[in-house]
Amino acid sequence: MTLSVTSSQIPRGFSFSSAACGLKKSGLDLGLLVSKTPAAAAAMFTTNRVQAAPVRLSQMHLRRSRGKMRAVVVNSGNANCCTGSDGYSASEATSRKVARELALDPSQVLVCSTGVIGLPMRVEKILKAVPALVRTRTGEPEAFSQFTRAIMTTDTRPKWAAANCSVGGKAVRILGCCKGAGMIQPNMATMLAFLATDAAISPAMLSRALHSVVADTFNAITVDGDTSTNDTVAILANGESGARRIARDGADFKKFRAALEVVCRTLALKIVEDGEGAQRVIEIVVRGAPSDRAAAQIARTIANSPLVKTALAGADPNWGRILAATGRAGVSFDFERVDISLAGILVCRRGGEHPFSERVTHKKMLAKYVPIVVEMHSGKGNARVWTCDFTGEYVDINSSYRT
Amino acid sequence: MTLSVTSSQIPRGFSFSSAACGLKKSGLDLGLLVSKTPAAAAAMFTTNRVQAAPVRLSQMHLRRSRGKMRAVVVNSGNANCCTGSDGYSASEATSRKVARELALDPSQVLVCSTGVIGLPMRVEKILKAVPALVRTRTGEPEAFSQFTRAIMTTDTRPKWAAANCSVGGKAVRILGCCKGAGMIQPNMATMLAFLATDAAISPAMLSRALHSVVADTFNAITVDGDTSTNDTVAILANGESGARRIARDGADFKKFRAALEVVCRTLALKIVEDGEGAQRVIEIVVRGAPSDRAAAQIARTIANSPLVKTALAGADPNWGRILAATGRAGVSFDFERVDISLAGILVCRRGGEHPFSERVTHKKMLAKYVPIVVEMHSGKGNARVWTCDFTGEYVDINSSYRT
Repeated sequence: MTLSVTSSQIPRGFSFSSAACGLKKSGLDLGLLVSKTPAAAAAMFTTNRVQAAPVRLSQMHLRRSRGKMRAVVVNSGNANCCTGSDGYSASEATSRKVARELALDPSQVLVCSTGVIGLPMRVEKILKAVPALVRTRTGEPEAFSQFTRAIMTTDTRPKWAAANCSVGGKAVRILGCCKGAGMIQPNMATMLAFLATDAAISPAMLSRALHSVVADTFNAITVDGDTSTNDTVAILANGESGARRIARDGADFKKFRAALEVVCRTLALKIVEDGEGAQRVIEIVVRGAPSDRAAAQIARTIANSPLVKTALAGADPNWGRILAATGRAGVSFDFERVDISLAGILVCRRGGEHPFSERVTHKKMLAKYVPIVVEMHSGKGNARVWTCDFTGEYVDINSSYRT
Repeated sequence: MTLSVTSSQIPRGFSFSSAACGLKKSGLDLGLLVSKTPAAAAAMFTTNRVQAAPVRLSQMHLRRSRGKMRAVVVNSGNANCCTGSDGYSASEATSRKVARELALDPSQVLVCSTGVIGLPMRVEKILKAVPALVRTRTGEPEAFSQFTRAIMTTDTRPKWAAANCSVGGKAVRILGCCKGAGMIQPNMATMLAFLATDAAISPAMLSRALHSVVADTFNAITVDGDTSTNDTVAILANGESGARRIARDGADFKKFRAALEVVCRTLALKIVEDGEGAQRVIEIVVRGAPSDRAAAQIARTIANSPLVKTALAGADPNWGRILAATGRAGVSFDFERVDISLAGILVCRRGGEHPFSERVTHKKMLAKYVPIVVEMHSGKGNARVWTCDFTGEYVDINSSYRT
């Protein structure tokens, strides 16, 4: 059960709106987020070599106006990727139209798109909807709720999270939402996430907070190992809380960073929970690897192994597949030191089977959240990655996505 | 339709037998291949860091007796992997028993296993079956046919291939069989394959032929990106054809190598065709990449992308997913130069959609064999990889493999 957002969780000075402009067959497919005053902004984008037009445009806008960003406009239903110069013009036209209606410079507008790749962008649908979008925005919880729905594609539910922290005695609010259910793989990647905060923070410190938090949250999840062409995490901080400005490392920054991490981790886990066809969230912890990097490589190889993920779909304690995935991760180690536990039960000790009850373990693995711990006894490297199981429904969703 | 092997395709001086020793719930699960005279041998094994006991034992035996190998014993139903020192003892006992019954040295016997990982090996079942196995072997086609069945696990059909070549006017026969349907990923990997030939060839040249051929055949296929812990390709050459000995590069070697390549490619494609749940074979050709290595990286990333493979299951010409997989392969290139064709139809030109009929393309993609060509226009690197589509049946098979 997800509670609705409340007024006290909406950062001061932000408004939201959404519309059904016709890019999807039905439902909301266009959203707008506006800060009433110029906001510091930071964002991270897909590492895919193939980048959608809005990603390229937004990167440029971000460089131009980090301390004075004002709006994010996002559409679902079309990724506007691999759409050539027409696609780029479409993103430009969108930012210009939003800027004109809000009396801004186009570089103060971030543009994001998600949906099918390679489909020509029918930008006229967006342009037509923008004036009403600008007019109808409010800071009410319901407006934010509608925004979280407007960015959905194969998501089965909207995803949002909020946290507060206190900076110099003043409450600071952080609110975020995201979309993503497939094409999910670490490496900034994978989804759209929008974060708004009324903290006052310098663009440099905001960027530092975002980068450090994303590594252990959005970049530590994987649904299918596929990195999208459009992924973007963006945060706007407008200072409207009235709290003192965070311009360097210290207690204030740490508090802000911790609250941001709560929001990002909650959102990241919601993506995995909503992974296409997923029945359960799998937490993969690798400990005692030769290095953190090696641990991460192993954790991701396990998390993306179709054989491991299908066994998890059947709640099958097939630890041999986990060990086999560990062995092909490109890391040198002695497998006869490895212990593996599944759902809290030790099933493999020193690379061999440790006696366990199949029935009891199977039952525990039917839970919504299943931890896997791989203890390598080969060093001090640790990593944690979240993924989901791999079901027939994933295949059904993705074999007919466009039809 | 697969024709049966004929007498003329069986290399001279080889015999085969098989048995149902009880490692599987039912059916043949033990096979024996024997050369009546000492044979040159070459083999390639899994690159997984986790290696099954029989793989480790066979590597040692191969080093000891490359010019005098005599037999291969193989069981299905249990991989004998992650089974500790008991598992290693089981493989040793198997080779000793076969050696004793055939009056050989144990190092003249290769041992292979395939099946579930981590299950204790009930070697007494094998040992009990060996005397009859040795006694009943023949060089008849039917004995080879039974052998090809005894090595199957999730395979839906036996896989074999044969080719002849002429060396100095004498016919030389090459016969091979293999098993493998899941856990299939390039890098010697992936399956068991046994090749027998009556060619006379030095161990060094035999090894050279095998290594060069495997790179473009068995190592160019992938079903799910998972590399097994047991994979082995082994060839025995006993010289019984009476053809002159191949001891260096030249016309004879080239003819032999070409015939071996035919056999290995046929076997490799049969594995992909029989990929768990597969409806069709996909050939992925990458051309014009910065290097051959880059081309191979891209081809394999496409071949292992769940999003690409599920789209192929639906015969969906979703070229955007192919381009997105290309973009995350870790290779630097300009995506706006890339052309993609699906089933012979150009669908993407210079990184954008090229007008094509969805209906016609969809229909062509329903074929049993679908070529994908990615032309990068970024260099001279080429690669070819074969894979299969990813269906709900793959998930069904692998979520309940042990239950």
